Amino acid sequence: MNTKIHGIFTPHIVPLQANGEIDEPELRRYVDWLIEKGVHGLYPNGSTGEFTRFTAEERRRVVKVVCEQAAGRVPVLAGAAEANVRETLIACETYAGYGARAVAIVSPFYYKLCPESVYAYFREIALNSPIDVTLYNIPMFASPIDVPTIKRLAEFERVVGIKDSSGDVAFMMRMMSAVRPLRPDFVFLTGWDAVLVPMLLIGCDGGTNATCGVVPELTRKMYDLTRSGQIAEAMQLQFRLLELFDAMLYSADFPEGFRAAVELRGFKVGRSRQPQTDKQQIDYFALQNVLRCILSDFGYVDAPAGGCPPRTGDIDQDRVSHIAATVLETLRQRGVI
Amino acid sequence: MNTKIHGIFTPHIVPLQANGEIDEPELRRYVDWLIEKGVHGLYPNGSTGEFTRFTAEERRRVVKVVCEQAAGRVPVLAGAAEANVRETLIACETYAGYGARAVAIVSPFYYKLCPESVYAYFREIALNSPIDVTLYNIPMFASPIDVPTIKRLAEFERVVGIKDSSGDVAFMMRMMSAVRPLRPDFVFLTGWDAVLVPMLLIGCDGGTNATCGVVPELTRKMYDLTRSGQIAEAMQLQFRLLELFDAMLYSADFPEGFRAAVELRGFKVGRSRQPQTDKQQIDYFALQNVLRCILSDFGYVDAPAGGCPPRTGDIDQDRVSHIAATVLETLRQRGVI
Amino acid sequence: MNTKIHGIFTPHIVPLQANGEIDEPELRRYVDWLIEKGVHGLYPNGSTGEFTRFTAEERRRVVKVVCEQAAGRVPVLAGAAEANVRETLIACETYAGYGARAVAIVSPFYYKLCPESVYAYFREIALNSPIDVTLYNIPMFASPIDVPTIKRLAEFERVVGIKDSSGDVAFMMRMMSAVRPLRPDFVFLTGWDAVLVPMLLIGCDGGTNATCGVVPELTRKMYDLTRSGQIAEAMQLQFRLLELFDAMLYSADFPEGFRAAVELRGFKVGRSRQPQTDKQQIDYFALQNVLRCILSDFGYVDAPAGGCPPRTGDIDQDRVSHIAATVLETLRQRGVI
Amino acid sequence: MNTKIHGIFTPHIVPLQANGEIDEPELRRYVDWLIEKGVHGLYPNGSTGEFTRFTAEERRRVVKVVCEQAAGRVPVLAGAAEANVRETLIACETYAGYGARAVAIVSPFYYKLCPESVYAYFREIALNSPIDVTLYNIPMFASPIDVPTIKRLAEFERVVGIKDSSGDVAFMMRMMSAVRPLRPDFVFLTGWDAVLVPMLLIGCDGGTNATCGVVPELTRKMYDLTRSGQIAEAMQLQFRLLELFDAMLYSADFPEGFRAAVELRGFKVGRSRQPQTDKQQIDYFALQNVLRCILSDFGYVDAPAGGCPPRTGDIDQDRVSHIAATVLETLRQRGVI
Repeated sequence: MNTKIHGIFTPHIVPLQANGEIDEPELRRYVDWLIEKGVHGLYPNGSTGEFTRFTAEERRRVVKVVCEQAAGRVPVLAGAAEANVRETLIACETYAGYGARAVAIVSPFYYKLCPESVYAYFREIALNSPIDVTLYNIPMFASPIDVPTIKRLAEFERVVGIKDSSGDVAFMMRMMSAVRPLRPDFVFLTGWDAVLVPMLLIGCDGGTNATCGVVPELTRKMYDLTRSGQIAEAMQLQFRLLELFDAMLYSADFPEGFRAAVELRGFKVGRSRQPQTDKQQIDYFALQNVLRCILSDFGYVDAPAGGCPPRTGDIDQDRVSHIAATVLETLRQRGVI
Repeated sequence: MNTKIHGIFTPHIVPLQANGEIDEPELRRYVDWLIEKGVHGLYPNGSTGEFTRFTAEERRRVVKVVCEQAAGRVPVLAGAAEANVRETLIACETYAGYGARAVAIVSPFYYKLCPESVYAYFREIALNSPIDVTLYNIPMFASPIDVPTIKRLAEFERVVGIKDSSGDVAFMMRMMSAVRPLRPDFVFLTGWDAVLVPMLLIGCDGGTNATCGVVPELTRKMYDLTRSGQIAEAMQLQFRLLELFDAMLYSADFPEGFRAAVELRGFKVGRSRQPQTDKQQIDYFALQNVLRCILSDFGYVDAPAGGCPPRTGDIDQDRVSHIAATVLETLRQRGVI
Repeated sequence: MNTKIHGIFTPHIVPLQANGEIDEPELRRYVDWLIEKGVHGLYPNGSTGEFTRFTAEERRRVVKVVCEQAAGRVPVLAGAAEANVRETLIACETYAGYGARAVAIVSPFYYKLCPESVYAYFREIALNSPIDVTLYNIPMFASPIDVPTIKRLAEFERVVGIKDSSGDVAFMMRMMSAVRPLRPDFVFLTGWDAVLVPMLLIGCDGGTNATCGVVPELTRKMYDLTRSGQIAEAMQLQFRLLELFDAMLYSADFPEGFRAAVELRGFKVGRSRQPQTDKQQIDYFALQNVLRCILSDFGYVDAPAGGCPPRTGDIDQDRVSHIAATVLETLRQRGVI
Repeated sequence: MNTKIHGIFTPHIVPLQANGEIDEPELRRYVDWLIEKGVHGLYPNGSTGEFTRFTAEERRRVVKVVCEQAAGRVPVLAGAAEANVRETLIACETYAGYGARAVAIVSPFYYKLCPESVYAYFREIALNSPIDVTLYNIPMFASPIDVPTIKRLAEFERVVGIKDSSGDVAFMMRMMSAVRPLRPDFVFLTGWDAVLVPMLLIGCDGGTNATCGVVPELTRKMYDLTRSGQIAEAMQLQFRLLELFDAMLYSADFPEGFRAAVELRGFKVGRSRQPQTDKQQIDYFALQNVLRCILSDFGYVDAPAGGCPPRTGDIDQDRVSHIAATVLETLRQRGVI
């Protein structure tokens, strides 16, 4: 029998080659690194993995590579949403065959569906999937899954949990209150790194956190500290993680900031499939400089040659602009632009 | 040289067989009917056409069938958005080969992109597309395209117009003010049927209106009346269209209400790929009864056997509930449920 | 018997003295000017009149002054919303005594009330007011009044109309469809200057437009042209009004941009009761420079000494910044800052 | 010198007589009861206290009565927002004279101000207030106070803290990160009862929680348990409080559900100044029945005569409807309706 899903799963980015194709060797190297750093599981085809920017074939290849490379060392939660229920079910079967522990299926997007339609969609999947299903609620991008709908869906044995990226602590508690009397084993994972420790404290089983793909050591430590009751220490790290998270999240369109940070950890991520203007590429380097400063405080990377400004505990909005100007000047001097 | 796009284009639904496959013969029959009823153009793979619920192959097949069947009688504006720029450009080439007049490309969705990213995305397409491109702004579903971005994109010759489904009359005027001094030929189409006549009066070249797939005679007449200065008559029809539009739009998840109405016009639309609960299927029949009443007022279909309530000029919120109860009772008597 | 309310009413600003008190003589002079320029009515205590920033006594004084000065030349629609129904009814009685034609009552604000509560609030007022009541819907600031609620409220004879500042043309049509079968005499006024002509074309009786307090000649002309069927001419002015409206609305917190423009027309408006930082005061002068350029195109004011940039038909976002810099430099040279 | 504000402050309701006037004796009795039950402080003229529905004179009277009755037993945080800065400063002086510990000033409402204007408003108050000021951020009702603005305002010594009712745990952490390096003594209070314990765990000094006016024993216990590190016990109560909070918050327009509950604790609250329809009054009794069930579980009140349904840990949406029907039937049998 399958063990209950728990811990910090990594919704990882997908490295790309110069020609835009998936960089499979680098993806494998990245998976190894994440596992060595202590992640509890892997989560290909998440929002961080830009699943919508790949073809159906490519999404399958990503899961295949990750399952192969993980090779049972950690469980794989595979994003399986496709264009419609039939295609999604084919992906479920395929990923079951690859050895995934479960699939994660985002609520229907583009169209904003009413709760009854969201229920009908997941019900159809729950009745036919050969593999455990976790619901994926991300109201900023997809049709929201509300509490009554979650409660109704928890009646299906195949639905084993939910990943919620709303970041709303009260909403998470409402889900728990609604579902746990019926399904004490139901798994609650938070996708909002900014409140990982508070979410664990209120009873979450773990998280699927993009930040984990950047600083897996840190998120693992936060998880372990919280579990062992060292809350003050855990919260101290949470405040520091928040600075990193906000810098990655709000300085560029998601998930570009996370890709910039993974690159600093020593991986070739390549250019995004979403085109960028020259201005955005300059911003990218400027952001990396900021991220390098934050990461160097943790000792994960070396500080930039020019040094870092003193930390005041909050993200200085002017800092990015300042460094952007510096980078721009440097690029000009070198004749790059 | 290509003539300027104008008039009412139909973002049509796609009929499905019982097994969920595209019903090609019915689609061809529907295309013929639309052209005979006077639509100025066809628009496959729009939001009404549920493009996100088809595979890339199916989307191509839909455009192929529509172009073949239109056979030059009316221009085809083909929805060409795919998973990423490269795939989208392949679709552009393909649809050019099929004889489409232009492609319509929705702003990136799922991720909510900043204006600079929206610009970068369309810029890449504008620079490489072998066929004219119309932007598609639908802020309720996709990343918004703001006025400065439209102005920047209008600098590319390949970008020939915009379809806007915001329904915001002032926003349409702002776009016109920004773009026309640079590109007097730029095409403005409204996708918000509720204000078709006002949009034509402020200077729109036409519309891409889902309602046109249900009552093509009516939208054509509204267009002709407005163009010939018979505004009072046009507005009278606009008020009646609004009742129909609201009933289709707000009584079910889009575009299910439009599919229900097309069925009343004599086409086998089949079940949606988005699953429905039993409750929703009952609601579907109830809605069809309401729509039958509205359409019978125009003389397009026969009134329901049980007759229609008197019209008060507005959608009575209780009417759907009332008819739902009647339908439910009937279905029970027949042992259907 | 009272005649039906129609035409363009001015929700005017309130001039203040240097000590923050109401500048009564300037208010009287402003009222005279507005009437001479052709406004159909006056609307004290609107959002433009910053009613929430005055005490109850001051609000009364404003209406008293306006009614006295209008002296029956044009009707007065007096904003009468107070802290609760009892206080509001006292204001209704008072304004009836001052000779106001009707009161305008904004939907409850601060708390966001459900439709049933909005209904209960206006019902109580409708049952007890000694003067005609117009509802005031401004969903960006106050609890929205939805279509079913308007329909229910139209059953009270005392409720004679609605002023809607949503700017949503389709919503206005929905209200008309719901109410007119029951109350053919119900008055519909738009408070969204950006779409004044389209709103008149769909059947509005007039507007309560802040822009009217700045360019009363222009809004009057737009009204007259539309009423006499000269739609192309009216729309041409509408596009120009839109530029002015947007500049006033989006360059400062409402209604500061309108106060800046009224000052250009020759009235001492004084400093707002809402404090401003030094930066905002510089922005205020910069905005006035932009507004001076727009207004000089109409011939209402002289162009700035330094001249104006060529007009491209849209508000150039850089223009404000540019002029801001110029103003800043000038102020520095003069030792002001 | 003043001690740092901390603990749970009660933003209490104001009892009204049958004629709508403030019921002063009942307010005094309520204040005594709250202090006896262990609240750390009182907060008159909060949103719960419906400050916008009283006149300026009445708001003053409420604070006077509360300060007198508290008589130094607990500190008073007095809501002091008035129509404009001058009026607000007069209230600040008055409340200082009454012996209030500090004032709480909500961000400007009705108009949605930009951050620079919010700063200018509070700056003016901070420079002139004779009493400590706490900012009050409640973005669902008033102009939001963002992190950079809080940081700027924390430079004024008179600004001693913030009450935040956003309920966003990450936002609270962001404020702490921004302000604490400059002002280690700055006070952070949460106004979102649903997450009181998590907010205390991340470092809040306390809360101003409407629920405290209903179950002061419970919120005090939650505070004490959290402070003494008994987190599991505190969270267990938090989940139960959430059920009560949601029932009071979402079953009626705020703060009517809280008034209904205070009545169950034995106080005559009277009818709200916001009128109610018959339907709403029936809903009020139905809601009280639900609240009675929840409160009886805690042992604070007796269970209803007809008993309570078994608790499943979540608010059953059908329960209110069910009880509403029962109440309706009872009222009909008694000839009340």
